[in-house]
Amino acid sequence: MLMTGKEYIESLRKLDIKVYMFGERVENPVDNPIIRPSINSVAMTYDLAHDPEYEDLMTATSHLTGEKINRFCHIHQSREDLVKKIKMQRLLGQKTASCFQRCVGMDAFNSIYSTTYEIDRENGTNYHERFKKYLLECQKNDWTVDGAMTDPKGDRGLAPSKQKDPDMYVHIKEVREDGIIVRGAKAHQTGSINSHEHLIMPTIAMGEDDKDYAVSFAIPTDAKGVFMIYGRQSCDTRKLEEAADIDLGNNTYGGQEALVIFDDVFVPNERVFMCGEWKYAGMLVERFAGYHRQSYACKTGVGDVLIGAAALAADYNGVPKASHIKDKIIEMQHLNETMWACSLACSAEGSKTDSGAYLIDLLLANVCKQNVTRFPYEIARLAEDIAGGLMVTMPSEKDLKGEFTGPWVEKFLNGKVGTSTENRMRVLRLIENITLGTAAVGYRTESMHGAGSPQAQRIMIARQGNLEAKKEMARRIAHVDVSKDK
Amino acid sequence: MLMTGKEYIESLRKLDIKVYMFGERVENPVDNPIIRPSINSVAMTYDLAHDPEYEDLMTATSHLTGEKINRFCHIHQSREDLVKKIKMQRLLGQKTASCFQRCVGMDAFNSIYSTTYEIDRENGTNYHERFKKYLLECQKNDWTVDGAMTDPKGDRGLAPSKQKDPDMYVHIKEVREDGIIVRGAKAHQTGSINSHEHLIMPTIAMGEDDKDYAVSFAIPTDAKGVFMIYGRQSCDTRKLEEAADIDLGNNTYGGQEALVIFDDVFVPNERVFMCGEWKYAGMLVERFAGYHRQSYACKTGVGDVLIGAAALAADYNGVPKASHIKDKIIEMQHLNETMWACSLACSAEGSKTDSGAYLIDLLLANVCKQNVTRFPYEIARLAEDIAGGLMVTMPSEKDLKGEFTGPWVEKFLNGKVGTSTENRMRVLRLIENITLGTAAVGYRTESMHGAGSPQAQRIMIARQGNLEAKKEMARRIAHVDVSKDK
Amino acid sequence: MLMTGKEYIESLRKLDIKVYMFGERVENPVDNPIIRPSINSVAMTYDLAHDPEYEDLMTATSHLTGEKINRFCHIHQSREDLVKKIKMQRLLGQKTASCFQRCVGMDAFNSIYSTTYEIDRENGTNYHERFKKYLLECQKNDWTVDGAMTDPKGDRGLAPSKQKDPDMYVHIKEVREDGIIVRGAKAHQTGSINSHEHLIMPTIAMGEDDKDYAVSFAIPTDAKGVFMIYGRQSCDTRKLEEAADIDLGNNTYGGQEALVIFDDVFVPNERVFMCGEWKYAGMLVERFAGYHRQSYACKTGVGDVLIGAAALAADYNGVPKASHIKDKIIEMQHLNETMWACSLACSAEGSKTDSGAYLIDLLLANVCKQNVTRFPYEIARLAEDIAGGLMVTMPSEKDLKGEFTGPWVEKFLNGKVGTSTENRMRVLRLIENITLGTAAVGYRTESMHGAGSPQAQRIMIARQGNLEAKKEMARRIAHVDVSKDK
Amino acid sequence: MLMTGKEYIESLRKLDIKVYMFGERVENPVDNPIIRPSINSVAMTYDLAHDPEYEDLMTATSHLTGEKINRFCHIHQSREDLVKKIKMQRLLGQKTASCFQRCVGMDAFNSIYSTTYEIDRENGTNYHERFKKYLLECQKNDWTVDGAMTDPKGDRGLAPSKQKDPDMYVHIKEVREDGIIVRGAKAHQTGSINSHEHLIMPTIAMGEDDKDYAVSFAIPTDAKGVFMIYGRQSCDTRKLEEAADIDLGNNTYGGQEALVIFDDVFVPNERVFMCGEWKYAGMLVERFAGYHRQSYACKTGVGDVLIGAAALAADYNGVPKASHIKDKIIEMQHLNETMWACSLACSAEGSKTDSGAYLIDLLLANVCKQNVTRFPYEIARLAEDIAGGLMVTMPSEKDLKGEFTGPWVEKFLNGKVGTSTENRMRVLRLIENITLGTAAVGYRTESMHGAGSPQAQRIMIARQGNLEAKKEMARRIAHVDVSKDK
Repeated sequence: MLMTGKEYIESLRKLDIKVYMFGERVENPVDNPIIRPSINSVAMTYDLAHDPEYEDLMTATSHLTGEKINRFCHIHQSREDLVKKIKMQRLLGQKTASCFQRCVGMDAFNSIYSTTYEIDRENGTNYHERFKKYLLECQKNDWTVDGAMTDPKGDRGLAPSKQKDPDMYVHIKEVREDGIIVRGAKAHQTGSINSHEHLIMPTIAMGEDDKDYAVSFAIPTDAKGVFMIYGRQSCDTRKLEEAADIDLGNNTYGGQEALVIFDDVFVPNERVFMCGEWKYAGMLVERFAGYHRQSYACKTGVGDVLIGAAALAADYNGVPKASHIKDKIIEMQHLNETMWACSLACSAEGSKTDSGAYLIDLLLANVCKQNVTRFPYEIARLAEDIAGGLMVTMPSEKDLKGEFTGPWVEKFLNGKVGTSTENRMRVLRLIENITLGTAAVGYRTESMHGAGSPQAQRIMIARQGNLEAKKEMARRIAHVDVSKDK
Repeated sequence: MLMTGKEYIESLRKLDIKVYMFGERVENPVDNPIIRPSINSVAMTYDLAHDPEYEDLMTATSHLTGEKINRFCHIHQSREDLVKKIKMQRLLGQKTASCFQRCVGMDAFNSIYSTTYEIDRENGTNYHERFKKYLLECQKNDWTVDGAMTDPKGDRGLAPSKQKDPDMYVHIKEVREDGIIVRGAKAHQTGSINSHEHLIMPTIAMGEDDKDYAVSFAIPTDAKGVFMIYGRQSCDTRKLEEAADIDLGNNTYGGQEALVIFDDVFVPNERVFMCGEWKYAGMLVERFAGYHRQSYACKTGVGDVLIGAAALAADYNGVPKASHIKDKIIEMQHLNETMWACSLACSAEGSKTDSGAYLIDLLLANVCKQNVTRFPYEIARLAEDIAGGLMVTMPSEKDLKGEFTGPWVEKFLNGKVGTSTENRMRVLRLIENITLGTAAVGYRTESMHGAGSPQAQRIMIARQGNLEAKKEMARRIAHVDVSKDK
Repeated sequence: MLMTGKEYIESLRKLDIKVYMFGERVENPVDNPIIRPSINSVAMTYDLAHDPEYEDLMTATSHLTGEKINRFCHIHQSREDLVKKIKMQRLLGQKTASCFQRCVGMDAFNSIYSTTYEIDRENGTNYHERFKKYLLECQKNDWTVDGAMTDPKGDRGLAPSKQKDPDMYVHIKEVREDGIIVRGAKAHQTGSINSHEHLIMPTIAMGEDDKDYAVSFAIPTDAKGVFMIYGRQSCDTRKLEEAADIDLGNNTYGGQEALVIFDDVFVPNERVFMCGEWKYAGMLVERFAGYHRQSYACKTGVGDVLIGAAALAADYNGVPKASHIKDKIIEMQHLNETMWACSLACSAEGSKTDSGAYLIDLLLANVCKQNVTRFPYEIARLAEDIAGGLMVTMPSEKDLKGEFTGPWVEKFLNGKVGTSTENRMRVLRLIENITLGTAAVGYRTESMHGAGSPQAQRIMIARQGNLEAKKEMARRIAHVDVSKDK
Repeated sequence: MLMTGKEYIESLRKLDIKVYMFGERVENPVDNPIIRPSINSVAMTYDLAHDPEYEDLMTATSHLTGEKINRFCHIHQSREDLVKKIKMQRLLGQKTASCFQRCVGMDAFNSIYSTTYEIDRENGTNYHERFKKYLLECQKNDWTVDGAMTDPKGDRGLAPSKQKDPDMYVHIKEVREDGIIVRGAKAHQTGSINSHEHLIMPTIAMGEDDKDYAVSFAIPTDAKGVFMIYGRQSCDTRKLEEAADIDLGNNTYGGQEALVIFDDVFVPNERVFMCGEWKYAGMLVERFAGYHRQSYACKTGVGDVLIGAAALAADYNGVPKASHIKDKIIEMQHLNETMWACSLACSAEGSKTDSGAYLIDLLLANVCKQNVTRFPYEIARLAEDIAGGLMVTMPSEKDLKGEFTGPWVEKFLNGKVGTSTENRMRVLRLIENITLGTAAVGYRTESMHGAGSPQAQRIMIARQGNLEAKKEMARRIAHVDVSKDK
């Protein structure tokens, strides 16, 4: 029941996924050199589940069946589960130095689980049971699922139903007896091509007019009418270079995003989990966003690799003991651990929802993500400081291996006496990969915008911060007599 | 067994404490207007223990007796205890908007508890049992105890035993059959005058030559040979002004520090908990520092009051909805909650020592305190931004009440139509108190230096950060082959 | 014609200034211990003008008479003048470590000079000639003048004419043949009590309804109907302590603010420089604010003293060579010089107004002040870091001198072997003075709010930043074809 | 005498430059799609010199001939020249949004000019006259010259003469009657392939043992024994993609770096400007570094484009009026103008060297560059914040143009109603280019390391900051009596 990485990759081959890249259909996504590293990252979530060292973090006991499942398919049953979730994510960040993409599904499972429970309780609907059946299937098949939230949004000043093009948000185009027809797109879909399934949620709180946009459902990734257009990343085509290795920095792992389009897709009723209950769109969004802001703990794992790489660069540069270098590495660790502490805190302060699933502390999860929109940038800046200019001016791997150029590169790019020039280049390319290259997309820009842009967290901090109580504390200390104010 | 605040204050009167201030002995410290607010803060730790609303946080069950005790006298028995500790501290920060001083004793109890256990186990000594008896007494009497660590240190480049003046660190001057004679001083002693007892620890890791300085013991605050010289605080003498109220900002609560001098003080053997075991000085320091860095969670409580006051100031200024004001208040909350998250995280990740006492995660506790050396300054800066210049240019309370000046002050210092000028002044004075006045000593400078100056945390972060493991993670991703490096 | 400091002080005695403090009239402001340090600071602006070493900075040649005048009375005739202005200000900051208060007059002279020129040219009025006559008088008498701008403002959401209380902004109550009657108040008036004259300006851009508030005029400080209420500062009453010296940190110099009230004051026509020309209120405000934002170069002089004090503290602590200490001092210098560079830049890029007076570059002056709202706080934080906790916990000067306490303080507060405990205390008290005490009002809060609060500069940066030109640059590089956008 | 851009490009074709890329010799560097954008940037320095609008900035009057020359070949004759230099650089940054590479030559001219003057005066050598002749040639031919300083450095803990491999710093291998043979390499050589000439300088202060490394000389770029290996940049090979346009972000301009190797190159005596005078290596380095730190004003020009692009992105996103967006754009401008102010200040405070050439203020030039190591990173972070996640997840240009994919991309990536999807993509790709792509190498990493890494500036700030004078200021204010300190 727990797939291995290899089995996971084979399972993808069986899907008839429609992917486009550079204007053309990709015939074999699994072996495409641009896509493959992102598949390898997901495969790591399967392989580590079989490693006894990591079993405790990587697996959990299904509350539905009592069987061992991959934690990515688990509904959190305790604060301890919430903490193990992020420890798993940090571990995977350390192992892949990139986005491993499977978190969105886990976060979607948990938020839909508790939201459908509350919808049903108050509306007499049957979504929760439907969803449990679907979840059971996911757990049994050990599926990777793309929890899909972000719509293209069009004009951001207008509600879904007020857009000029009605497709700017995914919506119910038609309700049939056996299911619904949906239309629209989800943007920035992390890991969508590597997923067996897509689990769709609305992207914002909605009003009654937006009823048709209040929809949540699941479909197989290769369902009829579903296709993806692959997103470009910085340095993506280096992966197409002949025998590329060193220049990639990370030649094995990576992330992936795509635009996923739903061109009149049929969804059978048993896979529909919200269908017009607009009042609950906000709750679902808030919970998914909260879980997913906690999930950015993964960046501390990538940060660990970047800190390690910076320390190695200092070693190869021959300056590991310079006080300013040591101080910068301490600062990188301090910032990385501050993010980690925030993620831990929102987990440790989690609480049980009525459905039984545990939810993180929303205020602290937003605080966590807000720091993630800042600190990886500073950590990256410090890494670039320690790495030195060579990181962006050094010749290519082919120059290192060239008949004429090789010996010169070997000679002049050598650092500390006795060390390997190739090793030094490998480390600098890894730092380049995370700060400027393919992984920078995940480490920087997605740290900024994934799980909601910075302003989204600020709005939530304002809402959750209980300012009135704080005012009252100040009034008591200062003996402010409100009766004197009109 | 749980004293009330009032009983606590009365109990202080019974002590014959020797305190000096402005060059003269203070006859009645309890009623001295400069000292009294700091006593009121400690009293709050007693009163809240009787409030059913806060009982869960303020009290605990003694693992020695099974009886209910004030949490400040408790040895943490679980991660939950560690979390409750900081929730209690945040609460007290909110209630007093100042330093409530009793944490040092609690942190000393816990660090000596586990350290003496390990000394005894490895050396066959009997300190742990002695200490448990002492602790029992503290719990039974519900004492406030000054956990005293910081020595004057003299020339910081020299070890204790190498100082020109041997008294620059507290040391054993003589060993007698029934006890020891100690000499020296402890600086920056928070709450020393308000404490029933002093519990002394060494201040740094030591070498064999420093044996005589590796000493830990307890004495009553009014023991023979012990006296204190009170430390000045910004705006301290405002408390001496006739009928001072508004101008104090916080007319009830405050903090306190003193230089405590031990002029050949006799300590009976049963109150000696380390006597020459220099190898354990570092362990004790590290643990006390760790607990105490966690304790800076209290500043988030003071921060809550300051945030509330800033929000009130914006209300009185009539600009609560200006987007830049709202954004600054969000930022203050974000920073405050980030510190809180760090304190929570080091608690939630605590672990059991061999003695059974729970110890916080040392890395995260240091990360917590490192942020505390930064964020309160930025929160204070933002508060000053929102408050406006009036905070430092407005006339005095006596001007507000003056026959001629009163109506003019009332007229021209009025803010939003319909609000009270006095209330506005009260709020601005509270902000002044925390950012520039007596409480700024606690909110700013002590956030910087209490529980160790910033560099102390950086050294610990470097030591605890496991950089070698991070390097190895980077090597794996970049395929660095170390055999190629000499 | 150039007064000495002594002559200046004597000249103040001749004025019948009405000052209130702590609810009572101050009989002899010049010798009042709380006020006197601020007078000493202004006196420095007179004394240095007689020092050949500083003559080039401190004096200028009047463009009206060709005679040597104090630069504080000068209309800037060149970019070089603008640069010398700020070099004079940094010098005075270094010499007084506080606000020397005379800048507001200089900045008012220059902004009224060019604005009245433009009013007259477009309206046929005669304000510029009137003002030149007044200026001549100021130059001849070497007066200190309070350039007064900030009104109490009441409800900040309402224009002057819409306030419930019409006096919330200074306004023309009555126009007589020989002059006008004005009413209202100016808040936060720096140096108002030490000034011979008050030169009043409106505080915001105005609409036609606010005509009566568009008024600029000059009056003697002791004019009938004018009185002041002194503003409290942190630690102000330490100056009242018997023989206070060390504990003051800076026992000679200081700043001053007051609320200045105009209770139906008559102003003769020849001293009225704007009277209803509401369209020019904005221009006058913008220019005064610009000059005054440039003036915050003075804080770099105070910063120099604080940096020097922090370096001395490190010396007395015995740690001047610790790499983290050195690095913090470098950072303090870096921030201080960044502010300085901004002030220099707006001066060097100044341009000639139609009146002949030189005006600073407005964008860069706002950028300068924006940095001043941030960097002194960080410099202060670093100074507190280097100083150590002793700065806020050490006993008083009286303890150092006390018969019993003195030897103990001397012994235990001693730092580096061989240095003086008193010197160490002096340096720490100076740092306290600038970061928490009376000078902190000037170094911190007024750096924030003086010459306009941070948001005021941001609005000006937005207005002056020419964003449209920047968009066009981006369009050209990216080949954006705007014809494709509707 | 002033070449056009076209003539410049043609002049490059005549050189027989040896360039290697991806392990192979580049046959036609001028038309190589990876190299060409960097040539276009340099060409802009020629074309704008013919534009009357920019003539005043772009050209100067040779102090050698009195003729009009390109300012890049000019020796600064006044503070005004220093200011015009940076205004020219900001302009070129705005026009190319990248590094235009010609500054290194200008900065080398000016630093060698004054240094050779001082060497000759004190040693009776003849370097200054030699150099003037060479400079005349450069001015007459309107050459682009690579001022080359940075050696590979090998083990950074060792002096040049102590390296295991003697070639780690460029050195004199042999002195002949008619010239010298040099050997070694220069790393990170900006614009080396686009330059007609190379002007070599030592890279650090040296001791007597390093005599052979104290060498400065000029050679044609295609001299015998000189060859270059091209440095990889992020996203460099996008330029090789078929008909690439939109995806490049900036399809016209770029920067360039290479490793330049000197394999026993002969330099005739008349082109040798330092030959063993090790005492002057430090002076030359300090001056070149100073001029070049001033030169980073160019980044404010690139910043202007990035700010403009971010503002356009906000327009296309439909959110230009959101208060947080406006505030972020203000912050970007504030930071950009702060760097600009620092560059202006070090220019306006420049002073005349004995040679007649004007030198910038060294302290402020270092402060300028120190800010450049920080602010572009924050500006880039804010740009990524405003741009939104789409910048790194959007499909390629080929997808936009693909038959099947095109309409979908057009539909779903559309922003504000009525705007062009293509325009939006162009703007986002420009931001990607500057923050993650080829231009990020210049805007970020080179802002960090070009003209010296951050720590180099900190050392200079410490050296230039006159800390002793600051201590003395503090002593005076605090009445510290040094006679009391031993």
